[in-house]
Amino acid sequence: MATSSREGDQSTHASAEEDSAVGEDTHTWARLDAWWRAANYLSVGQIYLLDNPLLREPLRREHIKPRLLGHFGTVPGLNLAYAHLNRTIRERDVDCLYIAGPGHGGPGMVANAWLDGTYTELFPTVTSDLVGMQRLFRQFSFPGGIPSHAAPETPGSIHEGGELGYSLSHAYGAAFDNPDLVVACVVGDGEAETGPLATAWHSNKFLDPVTDGTVLPILHLNGWKIANPTVLARIPEHELLELMRGYGHDPLLVSFEASDASDDVHRTMAAVMDTAFDRIAQIRRAAAEGDSQRPRWPMIILRSPKGWTGPEQSGGLAVEGTWRSHQVPLNDPRGDERQLEQLEDWLRSYRPDELFESGGAPRPETVALAPAGEKRMSASPHANGGFLRTPLDLPDFREFAERVTSPGADTAQATGVLGEMLAEVIRRNPQNFRIFGPDETASNKLAPAVYEATEKQWNAEVSPLDEHLARAGRVMEVLSEHQCQGWLEGYLLTGRHGVFTSYEAFIHIVDSMFNQHAKWLEAASEVSWRRDISSLNYLLSSHVWRQDHNGFSHQDPGFLDVVVNKSSDVVRVYLPFDTNTLLSTYDHCLRSTGYVNVVVAGKQDAPQWLSMDEAIEHCANGLGELAWASNVPDGEEPDVVVAAAGDVPTMEMLAAVSVLHEELPDLRIRVVNVVDLMRLQSEGEHPHGMPDDEFDALFTRDRPIVFAFHGYPWLIHRLAYRRFGHPNLHVRGFKERGTTTTPFDMVMLNDLDRFQLAIDVIDRVPGLGDAGSQLRQDLENRRRDARSYAREFGEDPSEIQKWVWPADA
Amino acid sequence: MATSSREGDQSTHASAEEDSAVGEDTHTWARLDAWWRAANYLSVGQIYLLDNPLLREPLRREHIKPRLLGHFGTVPGLNLAYAHLNRTIRERDVDCLYIAGPGHGGPGMVANAWLDGTYTELFPTVTSDLVGMQRLFRQFSFPGGIPSHAAPETPGSIHEGGELGYSLSHAYGAAFDNPDLVVACVVGDGEAETGPLATAWHSNKFLDPVTDGTVLPILHLNGWKIANPTVLARIPEHELLELMRGYGHDPLLVSFEASDASDDVHRTMAAVMDTAFDRIAQIRRAAAEGDSQRPRWPMIILRSPKGWTGPEQSGGLAVEGTWRSHQVPLNDPRGDERQLEQLEDWLRSYRPDELFESGGAPRPETVALAPAGEKRMSASPHANGGFLRTPLDLPDFREFAERVTSPGADTAQATGVLGEMLAEVIRRNPQNFRIFGPDETASNKLAPAVYEATEKQWNAEVSPLDEHLARAGRVMEVLSEHQCQGWLEGYLLTGRHGVFTSYEAFIHIVDSMFNQHAKWLEAASEVSWRRDISSLNYLLSSHVWRQDHNGFSHQDPGFLDVVVNKSSDVVRVYLPFDTNTLLSTYDHCLRSTGYVNVVVAGKQDAPQWLSMDEAIEHCANGLGELAWASNVPDGEEPDVVVAAAGDVPTMEMLAAVSVLHEELPDLRIRVVNVVDLMRLQSEGEHPHGMPDDEFDALFTRDRPIVFAFHGYPWLIHRLAYRRFGHPNLHVRGFKERGTTTTPFDMVMLNDLDRFQLAIDVIDRVPGLGDAGSQLRQDLENRRRDARSYAREFGEDPSEIQKWVWPADA
Repeated sequence: MATSSREGDQSTHASAEEDSAVGEDTHTWARLDAWWRAANYLSVGQIYLLDNPLLREPLRREHIKPRLLGHFGTVPGLNLAYAHLNRTIRERDVDCLYIAGPGHGGPGMVANAWLDGTYTELFPTVTSDLVGMQRLFRQFSFPGGIPSHAAPETPGSIHEGGELGYSLSHAYGAAFDNPDLVVACVVGDGEAETGPLATAWHSNKFLDPVTDGTVLPILHLNGWKIANPTVLARIPEHELLELMRGYGHDPLLVSFEASDASDDVHRTMAAVMDTAFDRIAQIRRAAAEGDSQRPRWPMIILRSPKGWTGPEQSGGLAVEGTWRSHQVPLNDPRGDERQLEQLEDWLRSYRPDELFESGGAPRPETVALAPAGEKRMSASPHANGGFLRTPLDLPDFREFAERVTSPGADTAQATGVLGEMLAEVIRRNPQNFRIFGPDETASNKLAPAVYEATEKQWNAEVSPLDEHLARAGRVMEVLSEHQCQGWLEGYLLTGRHGVFTSYEAFIHIVDSMFNQHAKWLEAASEVSWRRDISSLNYLLSSHVWRQDHNGFSHQDPGFLDVVVNKSSDVVRVYLPFDTNTLLSTYDHCLRSTGYVNVVVAGKQDAPQWLSMDEAIEHCANGLGELAWASNVPDGEEPDVVVAAAGDVPTMEMLAAVSVLHEELPDLRIRVVNVVDLMRLQSEGEHPHGMPDDEFDALFTRDRPIVFAFHGYPWLIHRLAYRRFGHPNLHVRGFKERGTTTTPFDMVMLNDLDRFQLAIDVIDRVPGLGDAGSQLRQDLENRRRDARSYAREFGEDPSEIQKWVWPADA
Repeated sequence: MATSSREGDQSTHASAEEDSAVGEDTHTWARLDAWWRAANYLSVGQIYLLDNPLLREPLRREHIKPRLLGHFGTVPGLNLAYAHLNRTIRERDVDCLYIAGPGHGGPGMVANAWLDGTYTELFPTVTSDLVGMQRLFRQFSFPGGIPSHAAPETPGSIHEGGELGYSLSHAYGAAFDNPDLVVACVVGDGEAETGPLATAWHSNKFLDPVTDGTVLPILHLNGWKIANPTVLARIPEHELLELMRGYGHDPLLVSFEASDASDDVHRTMAAVMDTAFDRIAQIRRAAAEGDSQRPRWPMIILRSPKGWTGPEQSGGLAVEGTWRSHQVPLNDPRGDERQLEQLEDWLRSYRPDELFESGGAPRPETVALAPAGEKRMSASPHANGGFLRTPLDLPDFREFAERVTSPGADTAQATGVLGEMLAEVIRRNPQNFRIFGPDETASNKLAPAVYEATEKQWNAEVSPLDEHLARAGRVMEVLSEHQCQGWLEGYLLTGRHGVFTSYEAFIHIVDSMFNQHAKWLEAASEVSWRRDISSLNYLLSSHVWRQDHNGFSHQDPGFLDVVVNKSSDVVRVYLPFDTNTLLSTYDHCLRSTGYVNVVVAGKQDAPQWLSMDEAIEHCANGLGELAWASNVPDGEEPDVVVAAAGDVPTMEMLAAVSVLHEELPDLRIRVVNVVDLMRLQSEGEHPHGMPDDEFDALFTRDRPIVFAFHGYPWLIHRLAYRRFGHPNLHVRGFKERGTTTTPFDMVMLNDLDRFQLAIDVIDRVPGLGDAGSQLRQDLENRRRDARSYAREFGEDPSEIQKWVWPADA
């Protein structure tokens, strides 16, 4: 029987009759049912039909797709929620965004968008008639067509239904700073088992009921995954309700069975929807009037049979209400006459002739409850964030320049200065820019500056000892990289701007989310009606070379390797090596669209190298010679090129060059720093890739190149392997040697230290004679000696200090 | 006031006096307190002291470490739990393993291990006297010393406290198949915000109270992270209790304040511990007697001040009970005379003279409640799993061989046959081998075979429609890759064996867990007393080339790139290309220790190439010539080497070779297949690395090499860049072109198809003359034609069929 929980806290059920407080007539139930049946019909059609879309003739095997790929199980529940949200939007005039968490709900999302006209507006060849319906069916989960899950191609979607786990984080991200928006987020009970989803329920402690929008989670319990039951469908109802209350939500439970009469279904569902929206309105009103209690926002638990409205059984095995309807409930209607009949009966059970006109368009009564224009969830401008995006109002980053009297003479904390710039970005953009991080905004030195401009948003309990917490603020901190990433993605996908700051090593936690977002960007760029959204900007600090007490487990620069595998159309990697290059780089990132920008920067006191003007030119080129460190006469070729990317490697390289200049003054060294890593790739491989002639002019074709790299050394080989000079390229970097130790010991352990780099140069340049041999021996000795003090904390020994550029003994 | 929740369901508090039902005298409280004070003293000493370990003289600045690195905040709570578990172990004679989830509880774990003698047994230079105490202090978070968190070097630990999120999954993994073990798992309230931890509470639905052990979670609410409050400490108590009950646990809440008298603290804590262990005993008894209800296992919520027993304030700012005590509560006792006094007062507040003998050893009364021998948590053999590990009883994998009449003539599903072998492994090893997966065991084709040998373990509600669920079984399925990985890690670290099967693309979800486990293995291999544990074996299927309906979001072979960055001592990557190579590879993996073995294999019907004898030889070499596909006369050099790694690339390569042999019979082609990817690296880079002379003999130094690779092509360059022949190496692989389409279209999109590979060969071999040009043109035409049918599902067109090896037109 269709049941819903009573309002209030108890889990007892009441029948729909008792419970319904909706002042609707049967007309409404009929309309809801028409939409639902139409959406379900169109969904089944997408999974099965190549032809005969409206069953104008008896179904024959050649009407069926040769290979059946798709997922029906979750679709009827998704469509039911969609239909009822439509009614609510019209009645209450709310702005609503729909997020379909269940992985393979694609056919449902597409069906709803076609019904309300959006699909045809955006894909004009998929017309609102029989021809268009057939195209709609054929393209689904078909070679060159559309995937079986919601994707960038899906109107109204900001959420790929593939990997599972991020729907609720995306929903909250979309709701931040959108006070007039309700984000209805269907969470599948499979997805609910993932870690990211399990913690995303706590997002309600980070939402401000005044300045942010509303998230209405709809936990869809259909009971089964691919081959297993789901956890949340198999715990007692009182546990499930306690769980949701424990998460701070106010659960409204509604349960349907396959045998329920459709009027009961709609009456019950409508009542629950009204209760939820009434409570949302109450909460928002109270908050606007100053109620500072954290609201217990409503959420809906929708229990319905998997594969609802589909065939009850097939071949004697139960299908509806079981895992067997996860994908295609009837798996061989082309080969099995009985299944073909079942499929036809199933399709006709939706009474398509009542729903569609003879030409194939939906009848007006079928779509009578659809909202109009941008109120249609499939046409929500929030789901195509590029439409809403306005560029940031950015300060002149040059105003934050670090003064550099001479290269290496002064020190500064790069991320600390960036914090000052970001504070000004926050002041100028109080409603569309946020910083996300797992409790590391301060640790990464963006504080104290950013907290002079804003607070951390926090809506759980407060203590007098708290600092910088507020109900509304621009900094979002929760100890979950998944949440940070998911919130930021949702925020960007709905047209805003942001930064994710994290420890370098632990950004691997979101490798897979990064992959999915990069793929979304890549696929979205090929969807004509999608507009570019702001880039996702990472700021990775506490990097591999400065993990003085955390040690080996915190030393991992490999995120870059994950990133560069993604399409060159969407990924950018920057390694600014001092404050001014960081400022210039970040200014660029904050202006850009359509990318993932990864920026790795130091947070510790470190020498400064470039004036702001030099930094701007250097960053515009992405890489270049540090002329003040080179000693190659104009028009001549170097004996060796030394290059570096990253702050610590550049410092070590410059120290090595310093002694080489001093001891081997005739050795002509060209010193190169690389900020934009993608410049190393060939022109054909990446848009930033340097043409070969320019690369050769800088790195030469035939001289040794000694390269000090921030990350795993192989990455440089992977980027540069097509270059003529590649056989001469020798790279030092992190090779997985680490422990709890000093920064200098870290470079020693990985052979990235100044001594070794200088030795590397000597070993690769022929003809250095006795002076070279003697210096090499001297360097070996000094390196051996260095082991004795490399592990001393405290003041740097003079040997290290002296060797910071410039060396004038 | 020290309070604990009453037994039962309500959250009301009672004072310790009311609540205590423990029949202990004050003697017990004194002993508990002595241990606690001693452990706290030793923890503070580790953070601060270089010298004067027992304060035999007034504390002077030179006794203080020059740089203070470490974390005190969580330690007193960890030590309190440890002390009380000690009492419980002695009184009840239980086997207990302790997992310290809070990241930086390292000093506490080390202190407890030194107190009970284990530390000195394992590290004999860290003696149980003043000299040893000083060493203990000095090494902590010190260059070349030990990290600030629990790590492989920490006695009794199976859990690195660095990245956060996995403690509870590790705990359940340790408990599986260990019915006599109680795993006490302290979960930090910071860690509790992570996704993996948030879903790990549901592990209780997967634990069998008869055949598995017990997990006792202790949620440690000390209220703060680095710079922020924690979510779970800032929700009302009734919500927190509902949350834990909703997760299916029976929470026992105990709250302490800084002002609590120590007797009250211990009386209250002891009472809670007794309640928990009483309930555990009841549950286990009932289950043994046949109660089939899922138990509501007790868990403890321990609310205590952060930095408890530390300085109340510093410089006028509150420290104890705030985030300021997260790391070092007094940050500059070397430079600030007042802080130096405070530190001395703080250390003396533990009354060290009462706790330690004049020689520095703990007094007998201090350690009177420590259990003995292997009952000591720091000496639990479960925490050094290699001691308990017994090799698997493996069937002869040759019995499962696929018969290969001639190369490519027959087809089979490789993972399906592996499933048969794993079923037999399960039958022979009913208590120390499990398969873990996110609902993909069946999808990856290990079913149906494995379900003939076992069931899926499941202790939530069941339905008559369920298949293969049981209270105890060898397959663990939950839709969380984090859980699967964490459980398996815990299972392996305690001496057992297992396999993690997943979709290739989504294994990126656990990139960071893999990193941490690989680092654990690497660090553990350098700890003399740790014995090798079984390798962590991945089986990745549903791979990038066969995502016929899921499309782009499911296409990602980049896990391999993450894996190869880790130390060559611990990582192995295999790409068996047919059933018999998969069987041979997996047999090897199941026998190995100390590695992470990544195996990527196909699950679809695919041609079979090697007989079992050939497969064994081929896998033993890791790579080799496919002599039947080559046409190079003995003792002669090839004109070209074609190589492949992976099932689909090898099939395409063989098809290309087939037409080349037919059309250009004089072209001498050597065909190589690579199963063990690490063979491509240089000898010095990886233990499996091939010596250069062998590599050159196979691949030549000067002939073109065309390589068809399963993953991103750059990985092959990264592995082989040091080889002489590298400049001649041309690699095809996945280059991030994908969509919902046929397998053949996928290889076309990525230029990995047979036509392109044959063209690649022609383009690289000089002197093929007109025949070469004509064939090239013909191939271009056929490739263009192929686009027209590449996206057709259904029967493979004859052009594709024909081109499966061997081609005899």
